[in-house]
Amino acid sequence: MQKNVDILVIGGSAAGIVAATTARAFYPDKQVLIVRKEERAVVPCGIPYIYGTLEGIDQNIIPAAHIEQAGVELMIDEVVSISKDEKNARTASGTVISYDKLVIATGSVPKVPGWLSGTELDGVYTIPKDCSYLDHLRDKLETCRKVVIIGAGFIGVEIADELSKKQLDITLVEVLPHVLQTAFDHELSEKAEDILASAGVSLKLGCKVEEIEGDDGAVSGVRLAGGERLDADAVILATGYLPNTTLAADAGIKLNELGAIRVDEYMRTEDKDVFAVGDCAEKFSFFTRIVKGLMLASTACSEARIAGMNLYKLSRLRTFGGTMSIFSTAIGGTTFAAAGVTEHVAVERGFDIVTGSAEGIDKHPKTLPGVHQQWVKLIVNRESGLVLGGSVIGGTSAGELINVIGVIIENMMTIHEVLTLQFGTHPLLTGPPTGYPLLKAAENVAKQLRK
Amino acid sequence: MQKNVDILVIGGSAAGIVAATTARAFYPDKQVLIVRKEERAVVPCGIPYIYGTLEGIDQNIIPAAHIEQAGVELMIDEVVSISKDEKNARTASGTVISYDKLVIATGSVPKVPGWLSGTELDGVYTIPKDCSYLDHLRDKLETCRKVVIIGAGFIGVEIADELSKKQLDITLVEVLPHVLQTAFDHELSEKAEDILASAGVSLKLGCKVEEIEGDDGAVSGVRLAGGERLDADAVILATGYLPNTTLAADAGIKLNELGAIRVDEYMRTEDKDVFAVGDCAEKFSFFTRIVKGLMLASTACSEARIAGMNLYKLSRLRTFGGTMSIFSTAIGGTTFAAAGVTEHVAVERGFDIVTGSAEGIDKHPKTLPGVHQQWVKLIVNRESGLVLGGSVIGGTSAGELINVIGVIIENMMTIHEVLTLQFGTHPLLTGPPTGYPLLKAAENVAKQLRK
Repeated sequence: MQKNVDILVIGGSAAGIVAATTARAFYPDKQVLIVRKEERAVVPCGIPYIYGTLEGIDQNIIPAAHIEQAGVELMIDEVVSISKDEKNARTASGTVISYDKLVIATGSVPKVPGWLSGTELDGVYTIPKDCSYLDHLRDKLETCRKVVIIGAGFIGVEIADELSKKQLDITLVEVLPHVLQTAFDHELSEKAEDILASAGVSLKLGCKVEEIEGDDGAVSGVRLAGGERLDADAVILATGYLPNTTLAADAGIKLNELGAIRVDEYMRTEDKDVFAVGDCAEKFSFFTRIVKGLMLASTACSEARIAGMNLYKLSRLRTFGGTMSIFSTAIGGTTFAAAGVTEHVAVERGFDIVTGSAEGIDKHPKTLPGVHQQWVKLIVNRESGLVLGGSVIGGTSAGELINVIGVIIENMMTIHEVLTLQFGTHPLLTGPPTGYPLLKAAENVAKQLRK
Repeated sequence: MQKNVDILVIGGSAAGIVAATTARAFYPDKQVLIVRKEERAVVPCGIPYIYGTLEGIDQNIIPAAHIEQAGVELMIDEVVSISKDEKNARTASGTVISYDKLVIATGSVPKVPGWLSGTELDGVYTIPKDCSYLDHLRDKLETCRKVVIIGAGFIGVEIADELSKKQLDITLVEVLPHVLQTAFDHELSEKAEDILASAGVSLKLGCKVEEIEGDDGAVSGVRLAGGERLDADAVILATGYLPNTTLAADAGIKLNELGAIRVDEYMRTEDKDVFAVGDCAEKFSFFTRIVKGLMLASTACSEARIAGMNLYKLSRLRTFGGTMSIFSTAIGGTTFAAAGVTEHVAVERGFDIVTGSAEGIDKHPKTLPGVHQQWVKLIVNRESGLVLGGSVIGGTSAGELINVIGVIIENMMTIHEVLTLQFGTHPLLTGPPTGYPLLKAAENVAKQLRK
């Protein structure tokens, strides 16, 4: 079968959907087709919550209705090859789709450490974006007592937090000294560790896994370097993801050293009609342009919007300036969030920095019901005064407060400009105008800069 | 008695405290004294909540501990006169305080419409920042059945919402066609009206009060233009505030046409050693420099920080650029917030504008517990693309989301820059990355600009 479209998007998770719907919004006379192999697309960052708060995978599906409402066609099939020269793609069912513009949004796949033995055992799971696999894991966990999670990044920590609400022995093993260490400053990691420990999660930090042990083909435990052995009915490998770029590589599209598709500021590959967005596309730092392996749905969607807008007409106003690394999560009802560089990375990269923090409350007065402590930290470049990073520990509102800090950083505002910003405050919604923690943190930075 | 200080602050509510503590932070070798007449300072924006959510005025006091911790001295006394020439102030108790720099932060007092008869009757109340008066009103309301609130600004609406939780007949009378009309676009006002009406508040909109009627010196009802009569055991006048500037005027300090103290960008009066901040100081619009009568704790605190930083050394980096008008409130558990100009004001002032809105959710997927609808609207200047205003209706996180929009406006960002902003998202904390309502609203504006 032969099919012709103006814009072909391969992959229909977050990035693919946003690229397609943005393309329709900005080029309403163009036909847009998404081809994806999954009948239903899971909400990627919602996955941990199907193991506790939600009742299962059915409650964590990206609604397909939005795709149709935007006038985008959705085809369930798998693209098996791309020809850049002929400008077409071939699917598993034999359809050849000719395109004018191609967007590759093939996402990522779990990274299984090659050096680790026992990963093939029954009862050892990864967290792919695959509904039936994730649902099967949910059933399996119902029958378990002891679960070991390897890797304390966001997926590992969030699943541990969710599973801690059930009658399970949870152990979280991390080779680095702290949970969430690549995303957060130590103040956040340590507080998160306290909360996880209080919820009964056993933390094995700074511990390398030596081997996953099995018994008759099924997992029985995990042996740590140093000899300690953890019993396990199930093991979850939360050890990161790799760009899913075999299809692109086979088509001769250039990859970077991390296996991601090389793109320019417009999310375009070296072929001017082929774009790549999301986890499969190259990431670089907003601050240094260093290539990164970071994967975030919010970054993916931002890239997808930029690709969608630039497909037919490049706009110098609409470029991707590098990953800002805005992270947020909630653990045991406390929000942890960060934007920009961490203190550790700032120092490592060679920035001369000043940091300042302040603690307050997220409603006011503090006698109101539901008040949560709110702590804000800012990281500022000493010479320029530019805000490079920020962190928040707080209640629910911290999820948007970190976006306030994100906009400050992305606008390249100095700490002097932050000090004169006006913030709306309300008793039931924010910290007090007299002690808004973000401004108090800015003041503490300014005090140090005056020394 | 004679006393000498480096910096004298008259008034010890939000603005006075922030001016004093900022001065200490930026000029740590200077002595700072606050003189205020109230033993305890009420949290101004928390006042409505002492009539419902909180257990009384004792739960709504600005902690004095912060003042002392900042190294600021607090004197309870009333300043009765200022001499600019002698650089001193005299108190009711007879103390003469010599200052090097003076900050006037005398706040505001309720505005009682002069043309309205019956305001002197027993059972007619205003909402001054006076603990014992507010506490007395709380006791009085315990004995009432029918309460009429005149004025549907923030104070009137928030008190109505709080009182609606009690067994009281509440009527809210407003001369304008909508509640909160000067702060909000009609979409927000209408939704707020629906919520208030559902909570049992009787709304009399577009109704002028003719007279407050009494019986033997006590209030008995309110007569509206057109003849309708409302029974009332108590009447609350929520009809705005006037700058409290008698002291300043008596000292020969220049006032503007609204009775507020004239100030420059550094919050300085014409006397270079005398500053004024908060409700008593002149306000002008960020967008047009038109003089305004607006009073907001957050604006007051922003002004106070700027005055505190500039007391001894003006900094061109630290000026007040005009009131941004960032408002937020919660009515019946729904948050309403706006920043910048409303659509009505934009048109009235002569801006050629494009607006765009989008509705989504404030957590994702929508199956999560506690998900609230979130609606965002942006108002954009057609020719420049600059964002002039924005509104949000949502859950609790909307209180900080409006500050994201505030920073966008204050940075003079265009809609094109907004479209490429990166926002952190998380299932439990924000809308989805694929349909973050702020970005969808921006996209809807951009679509129209392309037409």
